[in-house]
Amino acid sequence: MATADARRTKFVLDEDRIPRAWYNIAADLPVPAAPPLHPGTGQPLGPADLAPLFPMALILQEVSQDREVAIPEAVRDAYRLYRPSPLFRAHRLEAALGTPAHIYYKYEGTSPAGSHKPNTAIPQAYYNKQEGVARLATETGAGQWGSSLAFAGALFGLEVKVYQVRASYDQKPYRRMLMESYGAQVVPSPSPDTSYGRRVLEETPDTPGSLGIAITEAVEDAVMREDTKYALGSVLNHVLLHQTVIGLESIEQMAMAGEEPDVIIGCAGGGSNFAGMAFPWVGRQLRGEGKYRIIAAEPEAAPSLTRGVFTYDFGDTGRMTPLVKMHTLGSQFIPEPIHAGGLRYHGMAPMVSHVKELGLIEAQSVHQVACFDAGVLFARNEGILPAPESTHAIKVAIDEALAAKESGESRVILFNLSGHGHFDLASYERYLAGGLEDYEYPAEKVATALADLPTVG
Amino acid sequence: MATADARRTKFVLDEDRIPRAWYNIAADLPVPAAPPLHPGTGQPLGPADLAPLFPMALILQEVSQDREVAIPEAVRDAYRLYRPSPLFRAHRLEAALGTPAHIYYKYEGTSPAGSHKPNTAIPQAYYNKQEGVARLATETGAGQWGSSLAFAGALFGLEVKVYQVRASYDQKPYRRMLMESYGAQVVPSPSPDTSYGRRVLEETPDTPGSLGIAITEAVEDAVMREDTKYALGSVLNHVLLHQTVIGLESIEQMAMAGEEPDVIIGCAGGGSNFAGMAFPWVGRQLRGEGKYRIIAAEPEAAPSLTRGVFTYDFGDTGRMTPLVKMHTLGSQFIPEPIHAGGLRYHGMAPMVSHVKELGLIEAQSVHQVACFDAGVLFARNEGILPAPESTHAIKVAIDEALAAKESGESRVILFNLSGHGHFDLASYERYLAGGLEDYEYPAEKVATALADLPTVG
Repeated sequence: MATADARRTKFVLDEDRIPRAWYNIAADLPVPAAPPLHPGTGQPLGPADLAPLFPMALILQEVSQDREVAIPEAVRDAYRLYRPSPLFRAHRLEAALGTPAHIYYKYEGTSPAGSHKPNTAIPQAYYNKQEGVARLATETGAGQWGSSLAFAGALFGLEVKVYQVRASYDQKPYRRMLMESYGAQVVPSPSPDTSYGRRVLEETPDTPGSLGIAITEAVEDAVMREDTKYALGSVLNHVLLHQTVIGLESIEQMAMAGEEPDVIIGCAGGGSNFAGMAFPWVGRQLRGEGKYRIIAAEPEAAPSLTRGVFTYDFGDTGRMTPLVKMHTLGSQFIPEPIHAGGLRYHGMAPMVSHVKELGLIEAQSVHQVACFDAGVLFARNEGILPAPESTHAIKVAIDEALAAKESGESRVILFNLSGHGHFDLASYERYLAGGLEDYEYPAEKVATALADLPTVG
Repeated sequence: MATADARRTKFVLDEDRIPRAWYNIAADLPVPAAPPLHPGTGQPLGPADLAPLFPMALILQEVSQDREVAIPEAVRDAYRLYRPSPLFRAHRLEAALGTPAHIYYKYEGTSPAGSHKPNTAIPQAYYNKQEGVARLATETGAGQWGSSLAFAGALFGLEVKVYQVRASYDQKPYRRMLMESYGAQVVPSPSPDTSYGRRVLEETPDTPGSLGIAITEAVEDAVMREDTKYALGSVLNHVLLHQTVIGLESIEQMAMAGEEPDVIIGCAGGGSNFAGMAFPWVGRQLRGEGKYRIIAAEPEAAPSLTRGVFTYDFGDTGRMTPLVKMHTLGSQFIPEPIHAGGLRYHGMAPMVSHVKELGLIEAQSVHQVACFDAGVLFARNEGILPAPESTHAIKVAIDEALAAKESGESRVILFNLSGHGHFDLASYERYLAGGLEDYEYPAEKVATALADLPTVG
């Protein structure tokens, strides 16, 4: 079914179409995901184990089996500042590629923080505020999550402390300044502000840091202070749940466009924007309402889904988190400082890992230079300068479009453009100057890290 | 008439509501504006005088008396990448101020380049391409205009050379990188690439540059090369004309909100975003369809409308442009390096100046520190981090809202948020560190510059 206006570029929804409930994939899965375990006892975690870190509302969402979880009105009100996000048909990119494929992208960069991350930062700040929390501690890689929590903290009147991975802190000073403009306090991680940070600094003063290290620091901060809880920007079930507004809106917008996708793509670091886009579509597929190829695009430098082991591991490097069953390169593995800082993570969201094991999604790994090629081609045709993370999805979408051209078949491609690259321009400058390098899959480092996995039970 | 949903925050239009014609205020004015003059003869310019600089389609728009100028379909197609732009009701800012006023803002930062400037960059690139031009030369202050022309050049396959005011080039490296990512060539102005640039560098090697100097360089570049024309991001009638999509959409969106504005505000440097917002409303007023206070917000460091002289002057410092009748501080006046680089201009669009002389609009000047105060308050409530230029409009809007609170009256305020501040974070950092200074009105420097005005006729 073709749309009436063949040149139609944007599919926008009015704000009364912001979803009223998040979609919980747990309700539709044929096999439940393995539970998180207490690292000391090896037993499944209870709500009380998580209470020092999270407010009870989020802990209950973490284990909920309800298909729909109502979005509080105060959260929908804050979503109105930027949601629903637009869906675009990439007419100009299609023409540049000479492909018969139709390429659509959902654009999450219209949020004030510039990515999908406020979709969960806002409810996390809201629920913490509701339960009397005064201060949040968190980590950030590329800075997308930190600036989103800083923004959400400003909206709900919470103090925010951000441990920013040092490689990103140095590469992306504007991200720090944005967080500070929203009123947050930012330190490079590892930092002297935690005992774990001090230990890492002592052992490896030149470390670029990693998400795993920064998570340990933020968790330690939250555990040590009565007024503080911890907020995580990816990986956990409740985070993925909040992100499903992306996929839910995109289902409605693809219907406006009068097309069903054949392929659905998202970049995957911790897995939250990928899951946010993919899970509502996976749910449709599980209910027999459609059939799609769904692809997670991850960096060759940290390819947990394509090369990792599916097993219990820690979410952080300092081994303070629960044990979760996921695709992991080993919690002691520290990825090379690729510019897609948000994808520099040793593991993958347990629910994304589980869905991959069930054969409901695929994964591909891609090199960063090819991703920047794709990102610049995209910018010069579609206008939006993508975040380095998002270029991984663009790269795989372009490959799909070129494959369709090669085989002469029509193909409808939908990908999530998770954010803009306004704070990543130093990476683009290096790319344009030819100074960007690819990192091969670090087989030896991964083998070492995987030899050091925790023993369970 | 109140809207059904009291919390409604965003008023969005579908892309088929992108205006089909620009609004030309010349058709509705009781008195025509004074014509531009040839600097050699003192006689009104003819189309042939402008032909070395601009394509004929733009020259004809410059002098058009038609109320409506049709927007070509190829331009509307490119507008679809980001237009219509959203109108927001600033519920959270109103609550933070405790004002009974209703504050609305039209947000132009959703364009790929981050400001209103693509509204004219796109048609300028289009008309040049239509007439066989291969290359455009231009100047940029804050970088908003340069990145917009770079973006438009990429869309239509034109080379773009940008002379960026040195103060901005140094303060805002990310803007340069964005232009380069779109494929443009960027040099700091004054540059060694033009004879005028070389002369200025010789006389004042430490000059921060100015828009006036950069204009001279870009004009010289265009005049010297057969394949090149010049593109200006503000001041001229055709530029203001293209920007009227802002005001035209806002009229429709205020109707959606069920309110008529009492006060309409835009920041004014060269005058294009201000005119784009204001002129369609001025037109309504001239046709007896409404009554508004319309305020141009300008910087105290370059307050042409409030403190300048209304007379014939050059648009540039090097005296290469035609003579235009406008409010000017003298074309030899170089403003202090305030962070709102886009407002660092000695003159004002002749049509804005004329409308001010006719008493159809007001003007206010504001200091930059108070503007950053307003900008940070805005960001922490509404999420969007505004461009330093746009904070001037926010500051005046907040003053209006507080005046309404003081007098206990209701007041509907509409302002144009011309762009985001993602590339201005170094300014925010200086502000947050307390390192930002105000510049008093430079009375002596202005007096010197005004003593050096050209003689006419």
